[in-house]
Amino acid sequence: MTKIAVIGAGSWGSALALVLADNGHEVRLHARREDQVDEMNQCHTNESYLPGVVFPASIRAYTKMKEVLQGVSVVLIAVPTKAMRETMRALLPSLAEDAMVIHASKGIEPVTHKRVSEIIAEEDKQMKKIAHIAVLSGPSHAEEVALRQPTTVTVASENIEAAQFAQNLFMNKQFRVYTNPDLIGVEMGGALKNIIALVCGITNGLGLGDNTKAAIMTRGLAEMSRLGVHMGANPLTFSGLSGLGDLIVTCTSVHSRNWRAGRMIGEGLSMDEVLAQMGMVVEGVRTTKAAYELAQEKGVEMPLTEALNSVLFEGVTPQEATEQLMARMRTHEVETLFE
Amino acid sequence: MTKIAVIGAGSWGSALALVLADNGHEVRLHARREDQVDEMNQCHTNESYLPGVVFPASIRAYTKMKEVLQGVSVVLIAVPTKAMRETMRALLPSLAEDAMVIHASKGIEPVTHKRVSEIIAEEDKQMKKIAHIAVLSGPSHAEEVALRQPTTVTVASENIEAAQFAQNLFMNKQFRVYTNPDLIGVEMGGALKNIIALVCGITNGLGLGDNTKAAIMTRGLAEMSRLGVHMGANPLTFSGLSGLGDLIVTCTSVHSRNWRAGRMIGEGLSMDEVLAQMGMVVEGVRTTKAAYELAQEKGVEMPLTEALNSVLFEGVTPQEATEQLMARMRTHEVETLFE
Repeated sequence: MTKIAVIGAGSWGSALALVLADNGHEVRLHARREDQVDEMNQCHTNESYLPGVVFPASIRAYTKMKEVLQGVSVVLIAVPTKAMRETMRALLPSLAEDAMVIHASKGIEPVTHKRVSEIIAEEDKQMKKIAHIAVLSGPSHAEEVALRQPTTVTVASENIEAAQFAQNLFMNKQFRVYTNPDLIGVEMGGALKNIIALVCGITNGLGLGDNTKAAIMTRGLAEMSRLGVHMGANPLTFSGLSGLGDLIVTCTSVHSRNWRAGRMIGEGLSMDEVLAQMGMVVEGVRTTKAAYELAQEKGVEMPLTEALNSVLFEGVTPQEATEQLMARMRTHEVETLFE
Repeated sequence: MTKIAVIGAGSWGSALALVLADNGHEVRLHARREDQVDEMNQCHTNESYLPGVVFPASIRAYTKMKEVLQGVSVVLIAVPTKAMRETMRALLPSLAEDAMVIHASKGIEPVTHKRVSEIIAEEDKQMKKIAHIAVLSGPSHAEEVALRQPTTVTVASENIEAAQFAQNLFMNKQFRVYTNPDLIGVEMGGALKNIIALVCGITNGLGLGDNTKAAIMTRGLAEMSRLGVHMGANPLTFSGLSGLGDLIVTCTSVHSRNWRAGRMIGEGLSMDEVLAQMGMVVEGVRTTKAAYELAQEKGVEMPLTEALNSVLFEGVTPQEATEQLMARMRTHEVETLFE
């Protein structure tokens, strides 16, 4: 039995807290809002994020970082990438020495182009409290995890023993955890698939069907892999659960926020209207900007990312972008997949 | 403008005939039933297979092989794998010398374990009329092709100029054709993805969700690739349109027969009941047997194919097979993907 702090009580943080509680661990959950903490501690529910789910009484919620981190040496962070730096700054003063931090966030930071584990390490540069950083990623809608549906994820860390430690914390009969030493590949896959999901949503919003979507997902995985390999990832990671698996679930499921946001854009809404309607963070929007800048800087060809960037930030219409994409496609398959 | 015979007036043969006619070719379509030929020639429709579609008058249909092959040097065959040998036997006597045969069928023959191009070559061994064989495959529901939705496919042939010739026949603004010299990989991908679609359908029929499906598709592509590489395929082909792309469209679309058949099995129907209800060929059932035998013979690990074979032919229930699958999964990702 391990004492674990879960930072972030959105749908994914809550679902992972449930897995840990199912495995008999003592879970301390951090939420920002007092009323959400009260709801969790008194009613054992989190209706705004995981409606209909009843949580075990062993999960205790707190608003104060200091309280949630009391006696804890393992921390799971599940907050939007955008909130990662301020979360680290709030967390570090109360964190134990030699702590393990596992994160479950999927994004790349604009401007700095840092992955989430790099943000965490950078914030810890002064205090040096963190012994190991791992990422948990894979095809896993929170709603289905909460229903105990069979789910598979990958845990990656540069230190394979740290990855195995995290694997043991989460693994149970229906939540299957694989390890992978390729931290870069797992983080890049989780972040970049949101771009492809936005593009799939846009083509669905334009009225295009499954043939188009399959073509986009296939070419999308190739460009994700191209950029990832440039950043030092193992190309095989992109064929695994955190690459292909997560891409599938994000592009083909109605649960997916990024896909739904894309569909609204395809239907003609502006990005501001879409973000207002969603009411939740759409990671793919900021990641598109970061990945586009990275691709330009490194000279990596990413036609789907470029097309999406032009729609999101340069006023190109989804129709124009789709026509340009079709026109620029080459004709020999294997050479374009892996140039 | 080329004169092309299309053998097989099911949904896929008719949709491809439409693409060829759109490109200005003279298309002669072979159907087995007299009433279907009359319907095509008089009403320019094929209501049983592509309801609501109006065909150009330039497509002429025939029941007699001799008539359809008159003056033709390029033949497209789109019949079930099961009917391939009898089709070749009917076709060869009237076929011109040095003909090109393109097929669009997706299966492996039980007992012989031959791919479709191998069946075609074997049947032509005596007469030696065929100069080149190519396969056309990829993520392409006939219904969407008929609606001129953006679609991408791969054409493969051992002779790259033959593949390019076929590419030029089919390529147009919305039907994008890629070439690939890896005939084995393209044929294996098209055949094996039907096995994974049946498994996805079964888990959906059991009430399992998108997380499970994404896991099955990810592991499924890995085992398709393992067997394909053993047979001489290029592993990269499985990451392309005829591998990953076709897998996606077949596992996630309601149009897919194999997925629908799987769902009925998951819901508790017997295979006989399912095949009776479908009324169309479910290629994946026979391919499962062939792939299972091949995997045994070659010593290739294919847990999903084995599990499906046990459900289809050995009386194991879908529930039992799913539980066994979950229990046997390993824990280190990359090593299991590519052992």
